[in-house]
Amino acid sequence: MTRTANVAVVGATGAVGQEAVHLLEERGFPVGRLVLLASGRSAGAEMAFQGRLHRVEVLSQADFRDIDLVLSAPGASVSREFAPRAVAAGAVVIDKSSAFRMDPEVPLVVPEVNGEAALSHRGIVSSPNCSTIPLVVCLKPLHEAFGVRRVVVSTYQAVSGAGRRGGEELFRQTVALLNHRPLETEAFPHQIAFNVLPQVETFRPEDEGYTTEEVKIVQESRRILGIPDLRLTATAVRVPVMNGHSESVNVELDRPVSAEEAREVLSRAPGVAVVDDPAGGEYPMPLEATGRDEVLVGRIRRDPTVASGLNLWLACDNLRKGAALNAVQIAEFLWSRAEGRRRLVAE
Amino acid sequence: MTRTANVAVVGATGAVGQEAVHLLEERGFPVGRLVLLASGRSAGAEMAFQGRLHRVEVLSQADFRDIDLVLSAPGASVSREFAPRAVAAGAVVIDKSSAFRMDPEVPLVVPEVNGEAALSHRGIVSSPNCSTIPLVVCLKPLHEAFGVRRVVVSTYQAVSGAGRRGGEELFRQTVALLNHRPLETEAFPHQIAFNVLPQVETFRPEDEGYTTEEVKIVQESRRILGIPDLRLTATAVRVPVMNGHSESVNVELDRPVSAEEAREVLSRAPGVAVVDDPAGGEYPMPLEATGRDEVLVGRIRRDPTVASGLNLWLACDNLRKGAALNAVQIAEFLWSRAEGRRRLVAE
Repeated sequence: MTRTANVAVVGATGAVGQEAVHLLEERGFPVGRLVLLASGRSAGAEMAFQGRLHRVEVLSQADFRDIDLVLSAPGASVSREFAPRAVAAGAVVIDKSSAFRMDPEVPLVVPEVNGEAALSHRGIVSSPNCSTIPLVVCLKPLHEAFGVRRVVVSTYQAVSGAGRRGGEELFRQTVALLNHRPLETEAFPHQIAFNVLPQVETFRPEDEGYTTEEVKIVQESRRILGIPDLRLTATAVRVPVMNGHSESVNVELDRPVSAEEAREVLSRAPGVAVVDDPAGGEYPMPLEATGRDEVLVGRIRRDPTVASGLNLWLACDNLRKGAALNAVQIAEFLWSRAEGRRRLVAE
Repeated sequence: MTRTANVAVVGATGAVGQEAVHLLEERGFPVGRLVLLASGRSAGAEMAFQGRLHRVEVLSQADFRDIDLVLSAPGASVSREFAPRAVAAGAVVIDKSSAFRMDPEVPLVVPEVNGEAALSHRGIVSSPNCSTIPLVVCLKPLHEAFGVRRVVVSTYQAVSGAGRRGGEELFRQTVALLNHRPLETEAFPHQIAFNVLPQVETFRPEDEGYTTEEVKIVQESRRILGIPDLRLTATAVRVPVMNGHSESVNVELDRPVSAEEAREVLSRAPGVAVVDDPAGGEYPMPLEATGRDEVLVGRIRRDPTVASGLNLWLACDNLRKGAALNAVQIAEFLWSRAEGRRRLVAE
């Protein structure tokens, strides 16, 4: 008889939560009982899983004593509130919010990059920001092969990164503009339809002109790659794309590398798909990345302005590998290592 | 009596040509006679200028003997064909196409940056690429004040950069998608609606993985700034925006500079408007740049990953300062320097 895990999904009705439920089924994760949790506002909704409907329950009243694994994708404040309660009840929480990402006691994990770190958890494993994940998946093999010295990244982030209301707002604004109707702005600080916003998340006085998103990209990448002094600078930008984050990445390496060598290293890297025949019109695009598990990498070319520079371009399904898939992969990794043990809790 | 110039606009019915006609009127350029020229396909159309309709004539049959100044915005092959003929007839051609930009005998001019270079023309003055112009307008004052060492730029380019058919394609594709109808792709190599394409223009084997757009940004910037060995690397990207190019710019300077110093220098620079109160939601956006003469610059902040780095973000009306306005400003500059002379031709 197959060992199964009782799984709770917190924030089940959100964009990432829905994707997580979908992926648990698609990937055949050995789910025993599935518990869907959300705020009171979303409770009572029904979601399909393995051919039957599951009713969404209220998070604040949830009992975690019988739960092995929590896939958590609410806002950070909700995670901070419920996660300790779930851990105290014996569950392992894989949290997609920013709540615990910089907590030195909580491993921050991308399985292809630092999967082993997940094993040292004390009940919570954190999953990185949706812009950080594709970046480190590509930087890791480059760092191992050639040594990464400095990175300049500019992002092209889809509205789904702001949750369901992000997509709804782009849709509503687009329809309004095409019909010459006035448009409303709620999810983003300015009109996003047919516009570009050099702001993802918020500006805090202590961040010296950077957004919290840009700070996350830098700090999380350093933690995951295990390079505390990695020189990485980011500009995070929202574009009117429904789903799929893209990034323009300039990398300085320790030794000169040809585009072919870099392509070869990346094509062997786990979680990466090289899509790089630009003259044939093949390069990563958010439309192509959507629904794919891999980070798509292309436009790989030497940057001759430094001794050993590379430019590359990546695209990633930010709801999938950028969020829900990474969390499910952490669950799969922990589960595969838990072997005969009843619980996923570390020794 | 005011001296007037007889002006021909070539490619008058295109996106840039229409903007040029509009700007000649808006800016009160002393136009004597206006001649609108286009291919046979567009001939016969009528365009308004100074309150009356002008009929578009066929370029191939045009007589330039009475023309002082040609504002030229057709494709490069058309420019190469007609421009020598116009120059031979005594006109000065200000050409927006890529035909003569790298010709050492043709000055490549952004008036705020290297206006004087226009005076050495031999009949043709070239106006740069729409991504190059805003970049050099910002790099010039930074270079003069602090010395520019290296630049990494990623662009977010509007569809209007591909001419009228670019805007028509984004509109048609958006409508098709919202109505669940199949969409057609002609102006761009892939769907642009709700997508991002890391390709602007074409890939040539000799460019080692870069697009012709990216090569132009590098080569033209070096010429205009007069820094033949400027270390500048570019990634040019098309985004689903109707009008207004944005650029994420990382600059290494010769000496450490605070964000305040950089802001101060940029705010005094001609052709630049600093829009930089990010916490108050103020930063450059393509929607805000459209209709403005200046290049909008913001998100100015130190990049701590190098000894003296800056990140900044700019937005520019690519049809206006990125194209038609720059050409009209070159015309104004030449006209102001021509003084008593009948013709704009150099000595």
